[in-house]
Amino acid sequence: MKIEELIAAARGEVEVDLLLEGAEMMNTLSGEVHQSDVAISGGIVVGFDSPSAKETLDLSGKVLAPGFIDGHVHLESAMVTVPEYARAVVPRGTTTVVADPHEIANVLGAEGIRYVLDSARLSPLSVYIMLPSCVPATGMESSGASLDAEALSELIGEEGVLGIGEVMNYPGVLFRDPAVLSKIGLAGGRRFDGSRPRVDGHAPLLSGMDLSAYVAAGIESDHESTSIEEAEEKLRSGLWIMIREGTAAKNLDDLLPLVNDVNSRRFLFVSDDRHPSDILREGHVDSMVRRAVEAGLDPVVAITIASQNAAERFGLRNLGAIAPGRRADIVVLDDLDELNVQKVLKGGAVVAEGGRLLAPIGKAPRPRSSSMKVGEIVSGSFDIKAEGSLARVIGVIPDQIITRSLLARPKVEGGRVVADLDRDLLKIAIVERHRGTGNVGLGLVSGFGLARGAIATSVAHDSHNIAAVGTSSAEIRRAVSAVKEMNGGLVVVDGMKVIASLPLPIAGLLSDRSMEEVAEKIEEVAGAAKDLGSVLEDPFMTLSFLCLPVIPELKLTDKGLVDVNKFDFVPLFVGDGGEDEAASFEAR
Amino acid sequence: MKIEELIAAARGEVEVDLLLEGAEMMNTLSGEVHQSDVAISGGIVVGFDSPSAKETLDLSGKVLAPGFIDGHVHLESAMVTVPEYARAVVPRGTTTVVADPHEIANVLGAEGIRYVLDSARLSPLSVYIMLPSCVPATGMESSGASLDAEALSELIGEEGVLGIGEVMNYPGVLFRDPAVLSKIGLAGGRRFDGSRPRVDGHAPLLSGMDLSAYVAAGIESDHESTSIEEAEEKLRSGLWIMIREGTAAKNLDDLLPLVNDVNSRRFLFVSDDRHPSDILREGHVDSMVRRAVEAGLDPVVAITIASQNAAERFGLRNLGAIAPGRRADIVVLDDLDELNVQKVLKGGAVVAEGGRLLAPIGKAPRPRSSSMKVGEIVSGSFDIKAEGSLARVIGVIPDQIITRSLLARPKVEGGRVVADLDRDLLKIAIVERHRGTGNVGLGLVSGFGLARGAIATSVAHDSHNIAAVGTSSAEIRRAVSAVKEMNGGLVVVDGMKVIASLPLPIAGLLSDRSMEEVAEKIEEVAGAAKDLGSVLEDPFMTLSFLCLPVIPELKLTDKGLVDVNKFDFVPLFVGDGGEDEAASFEAR
Repeated sequence: MKIEELIAAARGEVEVDLLLEGAEMMNTLSGEVHQSDVAISGGIVVGFDSPSAKETLDLSGKVLAPGFIDGHVHLESAMVTVPEYARAVVPRGTTTVVADPHEIANVLGAEGIRYVLDSARLSPLSVYIMLPSCVPATGMESSGASLDAEALSELIGEEGVLGIGEVMNYPGVLFRDPAVLSKIGLAGGRRFDGSRPRVDGHAPLLSGMDLSAYVAAGIESDHESTSIEEAEEKLRSGLWIMIREGTAAKNLDDLLPLVNDVNSRRFLFVSDDRHPSDILREGHVDSMVRRAVEAGLDPVVAITIASQNAAERFGLRNLGAIAPGRRADIVVLDDLDELNVQKVLKGGAVVAEGGRLLAPIGKAPRPRSSSMKVGEIVSGSFDIKAEGSLARVIGVIPDQIITRSLLARPKVEGGRVVADLDRDLLKIAIVERHRGTGNVGLGLVSGFGLARGAIATSVAHDSHNIAAVGTSSAEIRRAVSAVKEMNGGLVVVDGMKVIASLPLPIAGLLSDRSMEEVAEKIEEVAGAAKDLGSVLEDPFMTLSFLCLPVIPELKLTDKGLVDVNKFDFVPLFVGDGGEDEAASFEAR
Repeated sequence: MKIEELIAAARGEVEVDLLLEGAEMMNTLSGEVHQSDVAISGGIVVGFDSPSAKETLDLSGKVLAPGFIDGHVHLESAMVTVPEYARAVVPRGTTTVVADPHEIANVLGAEGIRYVLDSARLSPLSVYIMLPSCVPATGMESSGASLDAEALSELIGEEGVLGIGEVMNYPGVLFRDPAVLSKIGLAGGRRFDGSRPRVDGHAPLLSGMDLSAYVAAGIESDHESTSIEEAEEKLRSGLWIMIREGTAAKNLDDLLPLVNDVNSRRFLFVSDDRHPSDILREGHVDSMVRRAVEAGLDPVVAITIASQNAAERFGLRNLGAIAPGRRADIVVLDDLDELNVQKVLKGGAVVAEGGRLLAPIGKAPRPRSSSMKVGEIVSGSFDIKAEGSLARVIGVIPDQIITRSLLARPKVEGGRVVADLDRDLLKIAIVERHRGTGNVGLGLVSGFGLARGAIATSVAHDSHNIAAVGTSSAEIRRAVSAVKEMNGGLVVVDGMKVIASLPLPIAGLLSDRSMEEVAEKIEEVAGAAKDLGSVLEDPFMTLSFLCLPVIPELKLTDKGLVDVNKFDFVPLFVGDGGEDEAASFEAR
């Protein structure tokens, strides 16, 4: 719409397209609820009044809010395409997401990022991109692609790209890794005004002078705080605090008490990694708003965090509020108490109603490759030779993506380490799948509780090799092969039989089905894993983070076991003298 | 400083330059006061701690705040060069200003803007530029230069330039003047992210659908609200509210009650036009902070408005807070009650102490021309032929820049209108001075109270022609000639004698002396005007706004009398039938 037409519509010289009448408005600019009509033309809010409108919507008794913005999300965690994601979240009030397509970029590189941008255009969801800064996440794993500063520089000027995504490699910042600093440098330069691209952060437990160094390097946000003290220090240091409420990591209850009227402007709501069933059951940003209000936050403040703050953090000056010149992305809520989303307008059109998407969505062409090229797997591929008596064990903490680094005396049979079901000591394998290197990382894990069989997945952060946990080498081998045969996905194997599976043919990460179908399948595979003895709520989610070597403490990649605190490989077996630690494991 | 060095300093690997110890800190990010040391290296805050520092400053008992930012100022109103301005305001805590060099640009065009940027580099004050959008302010006056969208487009990418300055021509926006829209368009384009330049507004009394249209066109701020209702509507509509406390226009007391913890983020403090004596006596942004706190605002909120909010509004992400990576522009206050500025650090160096600037300032070379080219003035130049019995009169409102449009039956002698001292009906003249056109606008004004003599000035918004008010044509002529002879400035004439003057040889707007000297001279000229009978606090300030045809109601330019509400010329004399209005004038 031309600016002249906008002005004419705003002044009432011509009919506006749509007039929303009679509702109360959550004004995220004046920080209050007040009655106001809303006039819309050409998809843009032109004002609060109009002498005539092509269409009028009576919304008496309802409450208008700006469309919600998820300030940081890896869409791939929902395991569906962007249009199918939109079908699920837009009816919940989310009209914009700032996505870091870190997962698909680790598999497909720039092609993956462009696939997300292209497929977003087929849906009523606005998707902005923060370019993945850690592809590969580390040099300690094999990814499907590598995006260095030069590769990113070709993408950073593209429409829809806002800056550099979460700099997970915080040690790389602290130790001044030139490859990391040159990526941050893409957002730097001498100009410090608004034209500088944004840089998101990721710094779990970083504190004191190291935190200061990380912030001084140009990082502007963080979504990894798990305690109020951690978030408070980061807030004081100048990081935008993204309150994350994902599936594996939930921080809202812990961080909310930090928010007050004055500092609330520095907070965002983000979902980071949220599972299909959680989205379908609880919702999306709307669920965070409701939870925050239940916990005592002023509804206007909660809505402002969910919209205006994200718009401000990312310089999206046409979003975040219902005001002249801003895009008419509007959520119609039932009332101020329940805050349930009844209708959603996107660019001035009603695109969702009663939880259902009305707008048509397209089907994006699949990327050319799913990057499923696994090296030869033989019968001994998953055997662990007993090269010591004391071994490192990845200790799973339920509902957390951090692990503990434990020590245990593994069970050995015929010179080989085998799973010890009595002590819940299983074998874990990470199989490189992008370039057929044949790399297989092997280790031990505790916390899954499988009594038999194996599970495997091609969703395995961040390089998305094939991760498997099982009670025997043979079953692990069967599970890995099944994933390969599906061109990616999740499987549960009992003996030599696949008893449940979810195919993810797009990059080995995404289904081409609806979120409901995917959620159902996930329930099936999780149920099947439970049948095998799994004690975890979501063993696949847990498994998918066990190879992420930027989250403490002990992780496994296709190249080997990583002590994240040291940010280096460590052998599976340790020398003697670890008796006490081993004892501590036994006593858990 | 290289990013690697910054990180090393932040981590405590090397000595930092300076450690501020023992003070409390106004944290504009977490919205609280808390104890914190501050470590500085290379002019940048690197953190809150350091094992070793080259220099340590014990600030126990003191309070640190981020350097203050004046969000909108016409530096020319202080009538001194930028370095001399810095000498006055930096010791008050102002470390950054966002200047709209509207006055000097109206005289010298792009050369004037570059002169401001260049001379700012010779001082410890950071000066960012919003490009004057109204040069000339209107087509109804003759300015020294013209800056159309094309001319502005050459400047908008320059370092230090943040966007388009206050779009005073709001009727031009509403009526879709292509010249105005193309200037706003420089900040537009398809990208709505942070890379879009800023656009400041100026919309006194604009309301309802016209306000919506103005905002929808892309205008983002306003500093013209005079009532809480006006500011509230603009706040709700999405404009940043710049609370102005200038010399001629003071809005702080009226608008402050609107500010609360939640909406405070959308407010800035600006001085707009502040006179030298006010700066020297009351201070600058610091005075607004103190006044706001006296009026009951939380000191942290007041300081945040004075720093972080302006930084955020203009996307100056390295300013506005004392936090890692941000420039070490820091104000040291005595305590939380008095909020007096004791020391000022700019880029990590103590540049002011106890109200005195310590840092050296340079002297910028004068622009080549002062644009003082007055057409021939003859004895009849200031005569007004009596072409009717009822004339329009500019009615001055003390301490306001708006005027009333009055009607009166002027005193006529020998077919010519003469001043009527009994009714305080004086003659006013605007003499074109840039191109020697010989244009002279003539009119009547009420409210000055001069009993004899005349005053004249080359500071006359916005085209800065020579404005004169006097009791006789001869004295007006003498005053105008005196201004011309000084190459610009302020004069007071009694009979044929200049009894006081302030030369302003730089563009006819600025002195090359210190602010103290200028203030003294202003007092002299104001005193001299008072001796002639002036009843106004500052007759030159009032006079300087009487030719500004974008502020209601009745103004005079070199081209004639302007009814600002109609935005058109009107004749001095009106037809009959205005008896009632004339009576109302007499009854004032």
